Amino acid sequence: MRYKEFTIEGRNAVLEAFRSGKTIDKLFILEGSVQGSMATIVKEANKHNCPISYVNKERLDNICVTSRHQGVVAHAAAYDYATVEDILENARSKNEPPFIVVLDNIEDPHNLGAIIRTANLAGAHGVIIPKRRAVGLTATVARTSAGAINYTPVARVTNITNTIKELKEEGIWFVCADMDGQTMYNLDLKGAIGLVIGNEGDGVSRLVKENCDFVATIPMKGDIDSLNASVAAGVLAFEIVRQRMS
Amino acid sequence: MRYKEFTIEGRNAVLEAFRSGKTIDKLFILEGSVQGSMATIVKEANKHNCPISYVNKERLDNICVTSRHQGVVAHAAAYDYATVEDILENARSKNEPPFIVVLDNIEDPHNLGAIIRTANLAGAHGVIIPKRRAVGLTATVARTSAGAINYTPVARVTNITNTIKELKEEGIWFVCADMDGQTMYNLDLKGAIGLVIGNEGDGVSRLVKENCDFVATIPMKGDIDSLNASVAAGVLAFEIVRQRMS
Repeated sequence: MRYKEFTIEGRNAVLEAFRSGKTIDKLFILEGSVQGSMATIVKEANKHNCPISYVNKERLDNICVTSRHQGVVAHAAAYDYATVEDILENARSKNEPPFIVVLDNIEDPHNLGAIIRTANLAGAHGVIIPKRRAVGLTATVARTSAGAINYTPVARVTNITNTIKELKEEGIWFVCADMDGQTMYNLDLKGAIGLVIGNEGDGVSRLVKENCDFVATIPMKGDIDSLNASVAAGVLAFEIVRQRMS
Repeated sequence: MRYKEFTIEGRNAVLEAFRSGKTIDKLFILEGSVQGSMATIVKEANKHNCPISYVNKERLDNICVTSRHQGVVAHAAAYDYATVEDILENARSKNEPPFIVVLDNIEDPHNLGAIIRTANLAGAHGVIIPKRRAVGLTATVARTSAGAINYTPVARVTNITNTIKELKEEGIWFVCADMDGQTMYNLDLKGAIGLVIGNEGDGVSRLVKENCDFVATIPMKGDIDSLNASVAAGVLAFEIVRQRMS
């Protein structure tokens, strides 16, 4: 297990955790506690879309391990992120052309978890997510991944576009999913490949898309706009599996 | 829109709703209210896995429309279920061989919503769900379907196995997803078809599986057991789309 949950207790510790970019899954704050640094903590929590529960002293004492909570306890998840090099090494060790799933700002932890699960079962060598504006490896993601988080390396990078450029130099081709591309069955997805999945609402961002070699389209027949992001990732990942098997 | 949300207010009305099989999405009960018929209501709610919120009088008065809540208000969803015949008629009107998604006890409303969304975009003519032991068309399902619930007919049947038997007489072949079948790429899924997806934990039930013509397997390479049910449904539905297009 590379994954565990823990609590962060006390005002400075919680504030520091937010500022250092740690993923806080949930914040518990003592009812009526709003003065001084607590206001800053609430501001940080809102900035990071972190849910807050206001609880009474008894409840907070129960959640707290150190008994020095100063009115605030955070639930966090610890997961050792991999590096992009770890993912490439994973492919090399299996003697397979790299197959990497790149997520351009997936926001819903259920989607991220389901995509890591799919990546594992499709034989992808790793998942790359951005450091900012996207969901990280939270407790919900760990649970939804059905254990895949312990096997499939997940790397967090500062700039998705730069990472794609670097990986192209390693001979990896990038395909993103969008509605204005070529039908996925007509693309050659057999070689070293990075599959790029965009944000739930906005799709793949312009700069990322410009740096992709292909745009793949899932043929759609229906009345509505688009598949759920994790379903789309699954359909595309298994089209890559089909082509690699044939 | 064939879908709307409404409230059911008062003890007898709520109890009657449960007993007639209506889908209650959420129950609001006055704090401290546990005597008499309220205990029966709580028992019914637990039996149907309906979440209960205990709220104060002010909150309950706000939720309530009629102001005669007697300590209990239920949130329910109303949706006109289609019939199996409606689904067949949908296929006939498009002059296409029927493509039906059959769900053998999907329990998670997010999965049901995502599958209806997928069914719509894959060009399926309808979705069949069982009356008992499965999630119905709740508010969460409607939201997760991203509007597909308004286009793709969903029929609720008493017995999935009997419905499969009847549809086989109409010339529809049934394929279920399981791990011990033939690789899906090697099956002929082009004709009139029913795609059967099993329960999240238990998979397809024995009797349903025995009545299917094929068992399709998604090729898996990873370390964990299975895909998320809605991802598996998406991968299989688009394999049917691929074969129909080729």
